[in-house]
Amino acid sequence: MTGVTFREATEADLPSVLALMTDDTLGAQREGADHQAYVAAFRAMQKEASNVLIVGERDDRIVATYQLTIITGLSLRAARRAQIETVRVASDLRGQKIGEAMVADAKTRARKAGCTLLQLTMNKSRTDTARFYERLGFTPSHIGYKCDLT
Amino acid sequence: MTGVTFREATEADLPSVLALMTDDTLGAQREGADHQAYVAAFRAMQKEASNVLIVGERDDRIVATYQLTIITGLSLRAARRAQIETVRVASDLRGQKIGEAMVADAKTRARKAGCTLLQLTMNKSRTDTARFYERLGFTPSHIGYKCDLT
Repeated sequence: MTGVTFREATEADLPSVLALMTDDTLGAQREGADHQAYVAAFRAMQKEASNVLIVGERDDRIVATYQLTIITGLSLRAARRAQIETVRVASDLRGQKIGEAMVADAKTRARKAGCTLLQLTMNKSRTDTARFYERLGFTPSHIGYKCDLT
Repeated sequence: MTGVTFREATEADLPSVLALMTDDTLGAQREGADHQAYVAAFRAMQKEASNVLIVGERDDRIVATYQLTIITGLSLRAARRAQIETVRVASDLRGQKIGEAMVADAKTRARKAGCTLLQLTMNKSRTDTARFYERLGFTPSHIGYKCDLT
């Protein structure tokens, strides 16, 4: 038992979520100080029924976060899929199985939404994280391509 | 000029889209005959404002298809991203730059929706397709993980 409860984030959680996002090797370089842009994105997400920000809370502290998006599609015999993004656990709490609990939470929410597939892309530089996902039943069957539109 | 026009699919296009999906190495094995499941998924997609099925049409024939999903999120300084899925071109029309025109269409729609990133995952077995995406500005920076929930 990790003692962590997962729930949908509120706007009041945003500073804690942003702190988790910058408390990360890649995030430290690329996340910025423009708080209002994050608030605007969060408000836009709240209008998208199938796109939620989840936080993990323990003893009144936000210790983990991830984004869950439900995507209906035709592929794989019209499978509905769930996608996770921006998965973060507080760096001082690693090794406590909070990540495992978070993925279990994502699987539960995905199944509840009728999904038969859970997917994510992970930057190739996160070699430790690869072992984490493979242990939890994820198969590295795909290449994740990104194209900058700016 | 490919002479192909891209537009949002209607339910009447579904048989042609399904034919394109099965006219594919992987799709031939995994797509099924339960037409109603695909119709139900298409109708569900139509209720999701940020999730559309696009078809490419030439001389009254559906020659290509892809799915475009717009996802708001906090990562990358609150970047909105677009994701493409189920990209197919009729096998007898390969080599006519229809795929290139389709990706260009996706980029235009993504930018119009305020996206700064276009992403996709591709099964590792599609080695020819990898060169196609890399030529069009996509970087294979990520590993795409899939977890079966059935």
